[in-house]
Formats: sequence, C-alpha cells, structure tokens
Amino acid sequence: MSILIKNATIVTMNENRDVFGGDLLIENDRISRIGKLDRYTADMVIDASNQLLLPGFVQSHVHLCQVLFRGMADDLELLDWLQQRIWPLESGHDEESLYYSSLLGCAELLRGGTTSIIDMATVKHTESVFTAVKQAGIRYLGGKCLMDHGEDVPPALLDTPEKALQESLELYQRWNNYDNGRIRYALCPRFAVSCSDTLLRETALLSRQYKIPVHTHASENQGEIELVEKERGMRNVVYLDSLGLCNDQLILAHCIHLNTNEMRILAESRSNIVHCPSSNLKLGSGIAPIPPLLNMGARVSLGADGAPCNNNLSMFMEMRLAALIQKPFHGPSSMPAETVVEIATLGGARAMGWEHEIGSLEEGKKADMVLISLDGWHTRPQNAASVYSQLVYQAQANDVTVTIVDGHLLMKEGRLLSIDEEKLKSAAETSLQRVCQRAGLR
Amino acid sequence: MSILIKNATIVTMNENRDVFGGDLLIENDRISRIGKLDRYTADMVIDASNQLLLPGFVQSHVHLCQVLFRGMADDLELLDWLQQRIWPLESGHDEESLYYSSLLGCAELLRGGTTSIIDMATVKHTESVFTAVKQAGIRYLGGKCLMDHGEDVPPALLDTPEKALQESLELYQRWNNYDNGRIRYALCPRFAVSCSDTLLRETALLSRQYKIPVHTHASENQGEIELVEKERGMRNVVYLDSLGLCNDQLILAHCIHLNTNEMRILAESRSNIVHCPSSNLKLGSGIAPIPPLLNMGARVSLGADGAPCNNNLSMFMEMRLAALIQKPFHGPSSMPAETVVEIATLGGARAMGWEHEIGSLEEGKKADMVLISLDGWHTRPQNAASVYSQLVYQAQANDVTVTIVDGHLLMKEGRLLSIDEEKLKSAAETSLQRVCQRAGLR
Repeated sequence: MSILIKNATIVTMNENRDVFGGDLLIENDRISRIGKLDRYTADMVIDASNQLLLPGFVQSHVHLCQVLFRGMADDLELLDWLQQRIWPLESGHDEESLYYSSLLGCAELLRGGTTSIIDMATVKHTESVFTAVKQAGIRYLGGKCLMDHGEDVPPALLDTPEKALQESLELYQRWNNYDNGRIRYALCPRFAVSCSDTLLRETALLSRQYKIPVHTHASENQGEIELVEKERGMRNVVYLDSLGLCNDQLILAHCIHLNTNEMRILAESRSNIVHCPSSNLKLGSGIAPIPPLLNMGARVSLGADGAPCNNNLSMFMEMRLAALIQKPFHGPSSMPAETVVEIATLGGARAMGWEHEIGSLEEGKKADMVLISLDGWHTRPQNAASVYSQLVYQAQANDVTVTIVDGHLLMKEGRLLSIDEEKLKSAAETSLQRVCQRAGLR
Repeated sequence: MSILIKNATIVTMNENRDVFGGDLLIENDRISRIGKLDRYTADMVIDASNQLLLPGFVQSHVHLCQVLFRGMADDLELLDWLQQRIWPLESGHDEESLYYSSLLGCAELLRGGTTSIIDMATVKHTESVFTAVKQAGIRYLGGKCLMDHGEDVPPALLDTPEKALQESLELYQRWNNYDNGRIRYALCPRFAVSCSDTLLRETALLSRQYKIPVHTHASENQGEIELVEKERGMRNVVYLDSLGLCNDQLILAHCIHLNTNEMRILAESRSNIVHCPSSNLKLGSGIAPIPPLLNMGARVSLGADGAPCNNNLSMFMEMRLAALIQKPFHGPSSMPAETVVEIATLGGARAMGWEHEIGSLEEGKKADMVLISLDGWHTRPQNAASVYSQLVYQAQANDVTVTIVDGHLLMKEGRLLSIDEEKLKSAAETSLQRVCQRAGLR
C-alpha cells in the first residue's frame, strides 16, 4: 500500500526544523520520499493544499481504562479522586467495558491527531486494552497497572507482587513487538503509594533484565510525597533513584513538586518526564517546573492523563496549556510554540524509546503523521502566524483531517476507518452502566 | 419569523438553574414559550436531540480590530506587545481592513456560540466596526478607543481629548440602540497609561450625563501599575475610583494585580470585572484573584481579549482555563463548572447591563441562544458528566451547531448565514498585507 500526500506545508521536525511546501510518499509502513514528487503516484493520493503535514503527536501518559469515566470525578484532589472515584470505577470494569473504554480513548486520540501513546492500564483484564489498541491501529507502549499496597484500595485492585509481575511477564511475552513492533510492553507500577518496596525493587530488576520500559507516576501531590517520605524515608524521586529506576527507560508522569536535587537526578539520569498540564491544574496539584527542567537538559514530553482529570485527550489543549501556564512565572517568552511542538512530537518519541523511528518526518522513518486544516475561522488569517503558533495557540483537535499510523490511514475527515463508530457509541454507554452498578456509584 | 427547537436538553440558567428535556419557541426576537410544545409549529423547526440548548455566551472583553493580527505578537509582555506590535498594526488599519478584521472576529465568535460581545475598537475608522457588527448580526456593546497620552504611541493613534470625546458622541448618536437595541455604545478609554487625567475625567462626566457604559483595562501588568502610580500618585483602581468611574456602568478588563482595598472598591461599587485567562497567561501578566473576588460579591464575566494575545476567540477555551487555573492556588473544588457557566452567560449579561434581557433562557427574554452537539468522541459517554462539566471541561467551539441572536439564525452546522464566507476569507488576507506594509512589519 502506498499513499502520496500532495501540496502540503510540511512541518518536518527534522534536525533543521525545515518547513516547506511539498509532497510526501508513504510506501508500506515507512516514509519513502519527501520533496516535489510530481512524477510519482500511489495507491491513494491525498491533496493537502492549505494544510499542515506534521509527525503524529505522541502522548506519553494516558489511561485508556479511565476514558469511560470522563466527567465523573470533577473537583477532587488526587488522593480523594483515586479513593472516592477512580479506584472503585476501575475495579468495576469487566473485559468488555475495558475494551470499549480503551477503544473510545483511541477514537478520540486518533480523531485529534495523536498517533502514539504511552498508557497505564488497570489491574485486571489488561488483555482487553491490548485487543482494543490492536483493533484501533494506534501505536502503543503500556501495560498492566501494578498495585499491592496502600489504604482504601478496593481489594479487587490489589495483587501480590508475584502475581502482579507474573501477569506482566505473560502479557509482555504475548504483546511486546506485536504487529511489526507497533505495540510494545511497559511495566506500570501505579506510584510509590500503591506499591510495596518489594514490588518496586522487583520491577526495577525485571526492567533491567528484559529491557522493558517502566511507566509510573511521581511527585504529583504534596499528600502523596508526604506518604512516600513517611513510609520509605526519602523524597519520591530520590527513592525511585535508590531502587535503580531513574534511567532512560523510566517514563515518569507529573514531577510537579521536585527539589533541586530531584530535578538534577531526573535530568542526569535521562529519565523521561511527562508533563500533564490539564490534569495537574484540574486536580489542583500544581504547575510542573518545566522551563528549569528543560534548561537542565531534562527529557520532557506531554500527555493528557486520564479523561476524568482533564476531561479531554486533546494534544492541542495540552500544547496550548503547556505554553500558557509557565508564562506568568517564567516570563512571556518562556515555552515558545516551537519548543512545545518539539515536546509533543520528538519528546514523546524519545520517551517511547523510538526517536529513531517516529517523532519527525524524514525519509526512512515510520509513516506516523497527521494533516491539519487551516480552514477554520480560528486559524485565519492563514499566513500571519508561524506554523508552530498555529499548532500550539490556534488549532484544535477537530482541525485534524487525516491520521496515519504505520502507513495505515486511520482517520479521514472525522471518520474513523478502523473502528465501528456506531457500535462503539452504544456499547460505551451500556458498558458504563454496568461498571457504575458494580462500583456502587450513581 | 418563528423558530421551534425540539427535543433539546435545555440548560436554562434561570434562577433555579433548571435543566430538562424539552422544546423552545422563538417568535420574532423573543423566547415565547419553553416546555413540551408538541402542539406548536413554526416557520422553522430544528431537531435538537442529543444537543444542549443554552443561552448564548457573552464575551465581555474583545478587540475585533485586532483579529486580523492573530499569531503576529507571540511571546511578548503587555507594554512591549502594545508598543512593538499592536499599536503599529492598529495604526496601519484602513476602513476596509478594519471592517474585515471585525467581520472575521464575528465569524469566529458566532461559529463558537458567542452571541454578545463587549468590544474596544481602535482609534480611527470606528464606523467600520459598527458596519461589520451590523452585518454579522452579533449583539454588541463597544466604541472607539480613546488615547491622548503616553510614550511610543504612533501619532496616528493619539487624539486630543476634545476630538476623542466629540467623535465618541457622534458615534453614540449614530449607533446607540441601533437595530432594536442590538447595538449599543460604550466609551472606551484604553487604559490609564494612554489617557490623560483630563480625558478620563471627561469620560466619567459623559458616562454619567448620558448613562453610557465605560469599557477599559486596568491592573493587568506590574509595569502598567507602576506607571500609573508614578504619574497619578495612586494605585490603578483607586485612581479610577477617584475619578468616579467605579460603578455598575464600568466594564474593567483584567484586574489581576489588586490589593485588598482595590478588591473591596470593585466589589462594593458593583464594577464589572472581566476575567481574560488566556490573555493573562499568554502575556505573562498573572492570574486574576477570581475566587476571592467572587467571595466578596464582585461581578465577574469572561472574555477572550484580542486574537494576538490568545490566539482564539473561543468561550470554551476561556471557560476551561477559568476553571483550571485557579485550582492549584485555591483548591480543586474552586471555580466549579456551574459557576464558570454562570459567569460566561449571566455574568456577561450583567456586564452589558442587559441581565433582564439576555443571559438565561426564560419566556419573554431575547432569543439569544446556541445548540451544542454532544456527538463528538470528546463528550462521550454522553450521560456521565453534568451538563456544566460537559460545557466547561469537554466541549469545544466546533461542537456548536446553531447560533441564534435576537431571533435570527446566524450559524447552522458550521455555515454562517449573515456573512459571505468566501469573500471574507480572501479579503482578510489582502487586508492584512496592506496593514503590514503600512505598519512596516513583516
């Protein structure tokens, strides 16, 4: 299968950050040519006049399992949000509800131009998440959520360390490198509050032994940090580092409340920090010190987190907020639009460990890309703003007209091609009813 | 002309905040009936199944004259933003460029469900703004920008106080209460930095004499506050109050850096504070103390400000930000979604001095309303979130399917019915070229 995209404004995100009018040819799963390709044709030709072509967005922290609970947990802070809402709801999932929650998330993500995600599933039925992302066609790194510790956790979400890791290894063997490497496995301890010291140590060992990335949360909330300090006798990031977890295989969501030592640890260990601005504001958690982290050379990427703490999965909303919320504290020229687009594409690719394959439009790289229309009133005049300003401050998820992952056209003009839309819409509603009944909520 | 909207979820914003499934009948410019209207018919019937029907949004601080400059002034703080970009560009306007800038703004506003605006025009060619809003059909309160003072202002933007007020009065006589009261006039001194003491005193007198609202900016930026204090010997709001400007006729944008005394003055004088969260973040200005102002009983409404400091005119973006940015500082339950929707509808109506006519859906009120589809992936499941959560955290400008102002259908399914879309698109681009050439920019 080949796809030729003609007459686009190509925002390459290559090393020179070249932006130019031209064409791009996809053959199978890869970009084979970029330039003026007048003499080429393909199985499918897409006219992209007045549109931006750019690498698909990489959201490096989401929870597909929570998409079904969108709008059901407003106005709470992290620990209450987990204990009163999210854990009971997650524990109410059945295989089918988790499948449709994940598929609903993929539908929204692909609709809005996100081609790759790093996900944390829930404790049970993880197979359903992989089945959904296999179906949807999105690029995926994620795994079963590991929890064996903590108060107010529904029993259904508590594993023994042995069971948690045994199940992870089985899922790893079944799904890692599935479909041409599109799906990969990550070990996902929830956070230090929910994981015993033993579980985290074993996770670190397993990660080293099999070279499996570790995806977790840290330093999101003051209450969380105090709990960790009380139980483990160290600041959160210092503790993770003492376990050997801080390295380039670590994907660490939030990182809001860090002292200078922790910032230095994360930067020097090349750990991947995931900034989740909407979620951090909505839960009242705080504002992550992203400009100083970038100055220290830290690796930063972006994610929407869960639908119940956002309540969207739009990379455009996260980009806009990532740019805006730092400016009152670090000056109006902090977080310029180009930096934000870098984080949203190249930064995410690096967090996935796939910077050599995705994150920019270059010949030979994987064909993960999106087209964005500048035809809306909110992106006019079309020729005044820079392309980065258009993307960060002006464009919206609905402006995405085409989403391609691994050379497959997955969304065109709002229609999803890998998903039965009508079935998903009704199954999501009935699934939620079952989960709420089981969770005793609403 | 009559319009019957059937099967909507009606978010009334009446005193009880009733939300129910039902129908609404518009006759001429007013809402004649709300309820189950099975036996009624009308010239036009709209099926609103799976849609929210709510009062149109009122944006109480925008600059239509700046819409053409969207994306041309990123990463600057207020005084640099004005001196290096906005003033040169505004002074480059001709009658036609200002008309198309205003019409482009109306197109975006109506597309996104804003039915009423409070605007500040530029110094010259104000007639063009009124001609555009007359054409577009949006409800409008605004007027010529008054400037007679200050450094680094292009001479073309400086009037004498006499000329500024004389021209204002002429525009007032021509446009105030135009088209059944849809268009009204406001006196618009830019801010204390750009206005002599004489001009502000005369403005206050004129406002009292003719009962004309006054629309201005204050306390947006520390540099601005220092300038005012140096020149006038008082804090910004104290100074405005000393001139007799602080009363329910005052519409005061920003109000970020206030001391307790200034907060008390604004609350007790019933001045209308306009919160502009995107703009305040983007210019690095700060975060306005909205929760404490609301606790003191202050009148608060919302606005997008100018396109070059936002860069959108979407009430959904402003609502979402207004909710999110306070939570890290005032807790996750501060600024709940229902409060934000109140500010965006009733708050704006009050700022316009028209709370008895617009801002809620009630029999006898003006027919200003919007329909919002919940069919997007980002608003699913449809029955989980409250309607307020759907509106504030989840919905986007593109979800608006119908916009009605004064009983006129102005937007349906993305098409604008009062505006020649193709002509506007091309005229906006060519107008911008002329302005840039004249301003010596780009």
